[in-house]
Amino acid sequence: MGPSPTTSCHFIVFSCCLLLAIFLICFSWTNPSISSTKTNTLNRIAISSPSPQHPLDPLSLEEISSVQSVLRSYPQFSFPNAFPSIHTLSLEEPPKSVVLAWKPGRTFPPRRASVIAFTSGKSHVMTVDINSRKVLLHEIVTSVSGYPMLTPEDLATAAFIPFSNSTFLDSLISRGIDPSDITCAPLPSGWFGPLEESRRLMKIQCYSHKDTINFYMKPVEGLTALVDIDRNETLHIWGIGRKIPINSDPDTDYRYEVQKEKGTPSSCKVNPILMIQPKGPSFEVGGKHLIKWAGWEMHVRPDARAGVIISQVKVTDPETGKYRQVMYKGMASELFVPYMDPTDAWYFKTYLDAGEYGFGIQAMPLDRLNDCPTGAYFMDGVFARADGQPYLRSDMVCVFERYDGDVAWRHAEGPTTGKHVREVRPKISLVIRMAASVGNYDYIIDWEFQTDGLIRIKVSASGMLMVKGTTYENMNQVPEEEDLYGTLITENVIGIVHDHYINFYLDMDVDGSNNSFVNVHLVNQETNEGVSPRKSYLKVKKQVAKTEKDAQIKLKLYDPSEFHVVNPSRINTIGNPSGYRIVPGGTAASLLDSHDPPQMRAAFTNNQIWVTPYNRREQWAAGLLTCQSKGDDTLAKWTEKDRPIENRDIVLWYTLGFHHVPCQEDYPIMPTVSASFDIKPVNFFKKNPILRAAPYSKDDFLTLRSQAFA
Amino acid sequence: MGPSPTTSCHFIVFSCCLLLAIFLICFSWTNPSISSTKTNTLNRIAISSPSPQHPLDPLSLEEISSVQSVLRSYPQFSFPNAFPSIHTLSLEEPPKSVVLAWKPGRTFPPRRASVIAFTSGKSHVMTVDINSRKVLLHEIVTSVSGYPMLTPEDLATAAFIPFSNSTFLDSLISRGIDPSDITCAPLPSGWFGPLEESRRLMKIQCYSHKDTINFYMKPVEGLTALVDIDRNETLHIWGIGRKIPINSDPDTDYRYEVQKEKGTPSSCKVNPILMIQPKGPSFEVGGKHLIKWAGWEMHVRPDARAGVIISQVKVTDPETGKYRQVMYKGMASELFVPYMDPTDAWYFKTYLDAGEYGFGIQAMPLDRLNDCPTGAYFMDGVFARADGQPYLRSDMVCVFERYDGDVAWRHAEGPTTGKHVREVRPKISLVIRMAASVGNYDYIIDWEFQTDGLIRIKVSASGMLMVKGTTYENMNQVPEEEDLYGTLITENVIGIVHDHYINFYLDMDVDGSNNSFVNVHLVNQETNEGVSPRKSYLKVKKQVAKTEKDAQIKLKLYDPSEFHVVNPSRINTIGNPSGYRIVPGGTAASLLDSHDPPQMRAAFTNNQIWVTPYNRREQWAAGLLTCQSKGDDTLAKWTEKDRPIENRDIVLWYTLGFHHVPCQEDYPIMPTVSASFDIKPVNFFKKNPILRAAPYSKDDFLTLRSQAFA
Repeated sequence: MGPSPTTSCHFIVFSCCLLLAIFLICFSWTNPSISSTKTNTLNRIAISSPSPQHPLDPLSLEEISSVQSVLRSYPQFSFPNAFPSIHTLSLEEPPKSVVLAWKPGRTFPPRRASVIAFTSGKSHVMTVDINSRKVLLHEIVTSVSGYPMLTPEDLATAAFIPFSNSTFLDSLISRGIDPSDITCAPLPSGWFGPLEESRRLMKIQCYSHKDTINFYMKPVEGLTALVDIDRNETLHIWGIGRKIPINSDPDTDYRYEVQKEKGTPSSCKVNPILMIQPKGPSFEVGGKHLIKWAGWEMHVRPDARAGVIISQVKVTDPETGKYRQVMYKGMASELFVPYMDPTDAWYFKTYLDAGEYGFGIQAMPLDRLNDCPTGAYFMDGVFARADGQPYLRSDMVCVFERYDGDVAWRHAEGPTTGKHVREVRPKISLVIRMAASVGNYDYIIDWEFQTDGLIRIKVSASGMLMVKGTTYENMNQVPEEEDLYGTLITENVIGIVHDHYINFYLDMDVDGSNNSFVNVHLVNQETNEGVSPRKSYLKVKKQVAKTEKDAQIKLKLYDPSEFHVVNPSRINTIGNPSGYRIVPGGTAASLLDSHDPPQMRAAFTNNQIWVTPYNRREQWAAGLLTCQSKGDDTLAKWTEKDRPIENRDIVLWYTLGFHHVPCQEDYPIMPTVSASFDIKPVNFFKKNPILRAAPYSKDDFLTLRSQAFA
Repeated sequence: MGPSPTTSCHFIVFSCCLLLAIFLICFSWTNPSISSTKTNTLNRIAISSPSPQHPLDPLSLEEISSVQSVLRSYPQFSFPNAFPSIHTLSLEEPPKSVVLAWKPGRTFPPRRASVIAFTSGKSHVMTVDINSRKVLLHEIVTSVSGYPMLTPEDLATAAFIPFSNSTFLDSLISRGIDPSDITCAPLPSGWFGPLEESRRLMKIQCYSHKDTINFYMKPVEGLTALVDIDRNETLHIWGIGRKIPINSDPDTDYRYEVQKEKGTPSSCKVNPILMIQPKGPSFEVGGKHLIKWAGWEMHVRPDARAGVIISQVKVTDPETGKYRQVMYKGMASELFVPYMDPTDAWYFKTYLDAGEYGFGIQAMPLDRLNDCPTGAYFMDGVFARADGQPYLRSDMVCVFERYDGDVAWRHAEGPTTGKHVREVRPKISLVIRMAASVGNYDYIIDWEFQTDGLIRIKVSASGMLMVKGTTYENMNQVPEEEDLYGTLITENVIGIVHDHYINFYLDMDVDGSNNSFVNVHLVNQETNEGVSPRKSYLKVKKQVAKTEKDAQIKLKLYDPSEFHVVNPSRINTIGNPSGYRIVPGGTAASLLDSHDPPQMRAAFTNNQIWVTPYNRREQWAAGLLTCQSKGDDTLAKWTEKDRPIENRDIVLWYTLGFHHVPCQEDYPIMPTVSASFDIKPVNFFKKNPILRAAPYSKDDFLTLRSQAFA
């Protein structure tokens, strides 16, 4: 089975042009030889680069090729056909102390790759030194459950397996479905007990793409194949004789080329708005990954698993003009998307998208006109195929400045003492964006930096619902006692209730590595009789978390706290410790039974906030090997040790959540829903750091506006 | 005391140019004779207009003048010196049925004014018919406690009263303060028992404006005068000998003309960004107040008390092209801002800003460059002075379209079946904005309409903290057991902990007036043993609220619900009722003792959501007469009747809240903090109403971009 550069297929859902494609595995990546020679365009830097500029720069095409060749000549993998599949091949970050000590111009730390390979049922965790071409570390994982992230090749293979099974094909045909009309989704099977261990399994479900690109809205409901993706075997098929009509709505295709024929409804008649910068953008890009903007500096790199990793976030103190550390590393660590239907074709849908599918691998090229505004800088991703070959994901990340008409600060007074006082400062921010298409769902992840020192992390969800076929065409047909597990969103289609949780790893280093987590608790304090006409007030009680369990936070609206990460050694001139606080948002919490297998695997949702001592092996909230894991290598497990976290190098984990009860408006493609949380300075700056910001003046716009309205 | 059009002073804080100004009461309004003749500029319509265009158009200058003349000749007010002070003079809305039945071209419903006047200790609630020049209704309020909204003239008078008291002046001088250096704030005294009843009282506290415009940061701490604002008497003075140093920081003035001399820190170095619309704005303004945009129609009017009232919100159904009703009326009904310091100079600071100060009266003209982006339409307010004379508040509201680089919906897939599918639609919205400066604080209220049918109501707070003077210069001087009631934010200044609650009145009329409130409860459902490998899932249980108590909602993160307002008579083709849901945000809850006087007055914060049957007398959550009220005419009281609310004309009340523990970054002026909640279609549309939206094309921008980057 060799890759075919001229035929391209999708890695999650594999359209089954059976006769033609069954022996082809074909990939969605761009051919590197073409991409590396493409010319520079506005705000774009070609990916081909001889050497990294920063110790955290991702591996280049050349570096990945080197690692591949080291692995190919590695004795343990050199037996015929013993070359493993490569599930992760990415930068192994130098030790934190080394990165922190490094400065431009200094000797570069060794470039190393972290590799997770899989062969003969075993996961191999390896470190490969690129310069010396040596394998420095090679561990076969035995201590924890689970398998590595699925490769695009795994998914492509899996989706085809049931097509060699005649029962499966007969089942389609007996439903009146032409197998050439269907597109199948390879779905992680989760872990639900001993029967599902010891081999890599997926479940395959199919959809009709007849007359629509939007096959997601046309499930072949119930037909589910369990496949062994290493042995290419179909192990079991459910729902063989189940006959649920396929949604016959002729208007599910969302493409503009299809919809534009139908006329534009008034809700869609809006003139375009463009953000433009008369004096040009304010950010600079050092090398390809170091962004400098409005006193901020941060390193941004695409990552196959996390999507985007933001590192070494520093902000300039206006008092001194010098950089101060805020966060060493921030990234989406894991997602958890449990569907709320316990029946056979649905119970296992409890996805851990970063650890199972790879959040970055699924981040498709951004649309330069519609995903990011004018003036954006685009960054490419460089990843490895299962055979170790590098490939390029172009325009995977964009960086742009935003002005949305909001104000950074303001005050107006009526004319006091004869003076008119009205001072208003426009709010401008910098956004770092990627959009991962995890099958049906699209997640847009934004890291937004404000001039006042605030960092907003926003998750937006769009794309398609995962829907269920039903015989019902109207709610009046549904018996009152029947649980649909969701909403009838059109005839024969139920949008199943589900949750989304996205856990963020935030290695906060506020003014240095040793920080403490402080629960700034607001409590109702009754006043003593006769002391005040007031009976009560809200009193602040601060508690420094000593160990991990002190910092396991379930948010409570009627027992509120602020959550500060402070540097107890950096006390400022009025005696407050320098700090940043996490301001929760997207606060939906998981309500699943804590012993339910999906909840055990995604036990990072047991609390909304956790704090751990820094440990470079603890980065993925649902474990390093997530597929089919039992939950034995998770944030919840690590913190059972209840380690000390006071005045240490600590990592804060925040889980942002949504409950989603679908509605008709989510059909056939969902309007974007967003939630965000903030990381915000608290007694970090001596005063408002943008006190000296300038307002817009007429001169800023005059020429341009006259052009625009000419 | 006559108004002086050439000298202008602020209505809340009155700078005490003692010798010059003590006999002048001077107002911040624009002289109508000048304003009404000003010429039209881009997106601006002169305020002078002979007749209203819509039954809900606010009273014009001419109409207010007519009402004034009716009142002047009204027999009961015609005794010498018996003319009352006018506290409210605004449109009396025609009955809802009349407004709903009205169509352009039909006979106009009678124009009437709602007047609240005060004289001789009594509040008079009146209705004046403008055409017939008759007083149709005249009630002297005796059934409930409280006084009318303070007039600007009340505030101006109150701030001067202590200056005729020698003890007060001596107290200032003994602190080494020149009385000409101070600015005093007239503060509502709240209600704390029988001693404070039966007369209109305020408390006066002062600040030094020496060498700064930002007197708010320089309190003369503790010195507090209780004044009777009708008798011009100082009743009591607290803190006479208290000597707390005044903040000596020379860098509190936030004006750009002062700050620009100090150089621009890197955090403030950002190039301007302009939003421009190559094809012009997409909204239309009918008359002065009816806005049409992207299938939406809504009537927008400035209001002295609520700030902005949004009425008759309708949205076009893309299936039929016809308008459908969503909301009859939405507005900020009340604010509650309790400070968390029970000591003598602070306990009473528990403001009800809409009912006490008038949220609209405090909305100053917006900055055309910095408060609203290019292309905004500005709307003026027309209000009445205490003597009934009309005045104009120019540029009080702005309306603009927003594009911030976000997407309305998207989906990308890898190249499936040989096709590249990546469809992304930019998100554009319409914002209606005002900014009220309630003394130190600035509240920006945005009503944002999205093309997908969602309405977002956002409250942003900026301006200055209310701070307390202290002898402490460093936290190391503060005994551990001492409660500062806040944060030391600079030497000698404490930012006191406080909350903000903003209650919104939302008269939802989803597809007609009769609606029901449905609690869509998400509960953990355990599965039966052996039925599913899953142990649990989240199940939806819907409960229709029968009476008001069923709809009193305290939000719970671990016991979540969605909250739908549905029309049980409008069942769509698949059997779902048409609905809109309220999506909470800004969920901080009041923790004060329910018997604490401020909490009794602001008992609307006892729940985050309330639902009442429509009653035109119930619009102000803390009562019609809010000043010094005891809480006997509040949302909490009305709902004690537990009236039926199922399938009726209902009003939903939502309270958005913030806890605010101040920090150094809030000094000397606060970066904006925002929170919002949404009103969102749920099974209202048959499908995503912007399925047919067009993406941006290169042509949309090409010419302009080439100009911009030329």
